[in-house]
Amino acid sequence: MRIHVQNPAGTSAFSFTRAQWDAAVKRHPDMRDLEVTIDNSDDGWSAALPVADIVLTWVDIVGAKLRGCDLSHAAPRLKLLSCNSAGVDRLAPFDWLPRDIALLNNSGIHADKAGEFGLMALLMLHNNMPAHIRSQHAQRWAPMHATTLKGRTLVIVGLGAIGGGVARLAKMLGMTIVGVRNGSAPHEYCDEVVSVSDIHKTLVRAEDLVLACPLTKDTRNLLSRERIALLPRGARVINIGRGQLWDQDAVCDALDSGHLQYAFTDVAWSEPVEEGHRLWATPGLILTPHIAADDRDRYNDITLDILFENIRAHAAGRPLPNQIDPVRGY
Amino acid sequence: MRIHVQNPAGTSAFSFTRAQWDAAVKRHPDMRDLEVTIDNSDDGWSAALPVADIVLTWVDIVGAKLRGCDLSHAAPRLKLLSCNSAGVDRLAPFDWLPRDIALLNNSGIHADKAGEFGLMALLMLHNNMPAHIRSQHAQRWAPMHATTLKGRTLVIVGLGAIGGGVARLAKMLGMTIVGVRNGSAPHEYCDEVVSVSDIHKTLVRAEDLVLACPLTKDTRNLLSRERIALLPRGARVINIGRGQLWDQDAVCDALDSGHLQYAFTDVAWSEPVEEGHRLWATPGLILTPHIAADDRDRYNDITLDILFENIRAHAAGRPLPNQIDPVRGY
Repeated sequence: MRIHVQNPAGTSAFSFTRAQWDAAVKRHPDMRDLEVTIDNSDDGWSAALPVADIVLTWVDIVGAKLRGCDLSHAAPRLKLLSCNSAGVDRLAPFDWLPRDIALLNNSGIHADKAGEFGLMALLMLHNNMPAHIRSQHAQRWAPMHATTLKGRTLVIVGLGAIGGGVARLAKMLGMTIVGVRNGSAPHEYCDEVVSVSDIHKTLVRAEDLVLACPLTKDTRNLLSRERIALLPRGARVINIGRGQLWDQDAVCDALDSGHLQYAFTDVAWSEPVEEGHRLWATPGLILTPHIAADDRDRYNDITLDILFENIRAHAAGRPLPNQIDPVRGY
Repeated sequence: MRIHVQNPAGTSAFSFTRAQWDAAVKRHPDMRDLEVTIDNSDDGWSAALPVADIVLTWVDIVGAKLRGCDLSHAAPRLKLLSCNSAGVDRLAPFDWLPRDIALLNNSGIHADKAGEFGLMALLMLHNNMPAHIRSQHAQRWAPMHATTLKGRTLVIVGLGAIGGGVARLAKMLGMTIVGVRNGSAPHEYCDEVVSVSDIHKTLVRAEDLVLACPLTKDTRNLLSRERIALLPRGARVINIGRGQLWDQDAVCDALDSGHLQYAFTDVAWSEPVEEGHRLWATPGLILTPHIAADDRDRYNDITLDILFENIRAHAAGRPLPNQIDPVRGY
């Protein structure tokens, strides 16, 4: 089996290296017969694609190079097309994808890192850090006392790797966790799980709300202006999913009116956020540049671990853990 | 037994109320025979002191009203003098304290709240929040990726309630914890405990350092300029103890030179910190106004729980868990 890894042109902190590949094969000796090519040039791509059984690359490269081309001709042997991101929403709709090619995402990559980031955001909002950060900038000593997370009710929308990672840590600190997902199957770290169709009943008791679900046609504007109004006065909201999951302007309005106490977002409708946008300066809002989930030191190692598990499942004829369902969109 | 609770003059968010007292007695029915007075006036104090067996109050009130007066005459029945703070350093030296009066602190009050705050500070520094906060203020989208706490080495100086609270949570997240204390008795949440006399050997491997010990004549300037130089380049330091535990100027210098990556302090040499002080504006430093440890909602409840445990021990002739040793100073 031949696998081709296409890195972005130029240099990237997240480009795969031969050393990372070798270390991964050492961890997974059953993968040692894979023939690998790693490249970041157009020539390398053109040479590898016709003979590759597996491609691992970035979602933007798939969008630019594969969507809209005749894959049966350009990549006749391709069986597994793996993206190194958890979200593949930018490739939707998936009508360009032949049925005999499995599109894989990288779900699972973010559990530990995003879990810690989500916990940090919860702790920062509970400890009034948006106010303290402003006071520090104004050089004003203004004590405000807070309480612990213990016993507070946290609603987490999305119980995949990211939402599950947040749930695990928040549960450790003694929060009451209500999960929201498709269906209402129980979850190891949730005290309760409710179906997304009942989300309105859950929002009314959310002291803290975390959005951590994939962006699909069903989840776009999930936290609408009307649903923000359902949250109890003084609630805190955190978005570590996608900007389009919420009505960003309505969140800013709710902060300005005092309906929401604080908010934290790592994502925006349009990224990068341009200078002058109200997201930068709305009081009570912390904005970070889409860095919640990617683990600087371990990203590529975990990516290869996840991919190898899918290659193993493919060889054995088992369902692929990371295969995208083109209809659901994740 | 008569107990007098002296609140500060005026109003305070932390003043004890009769309702809090009644709720505490309900939790501890063996305390129901205590006769309590609660006041915030000079008249109330003057009436209560001659007949009180126990006084619960603020460290500043003890300093202003009791230090330097003849206690055998002014408070002839006083046996337990309880301060509602964990640190009583402002009352040192303790030569004013008669031997037959036990001075109690409120150690234990801060374990949960300060533990969460310490964990928040660790997560914020690991996730480059000092840089992201500056970027948000400058309206500049500047991604920087981070990694998890898991596997990193955290040195905690002081393993009382606050340091122990941080250790418990950081251990949950998979950090390797080295505790520093007087002696080197093992600690439930530390992988290793070293004596403060060997602190120099420990600092060289501290990726993160948390100061959480009491301020005494021995711990003043514990993290001196020379010891800061022992930390590995890029280390992160957090102070949730007292400002005088470290050389504050040397910390700012080490941030300016890049020797330290980031720092977080909730305390300062002199509080409130005046406008224009370099602590407000040193890049890489987050300063909060001494709010790490006090739990807004549960402070007085926990204080009474701790005091009652000491009253119980006193009645039974057992050692008092919160008694200050005038020589050690904590």
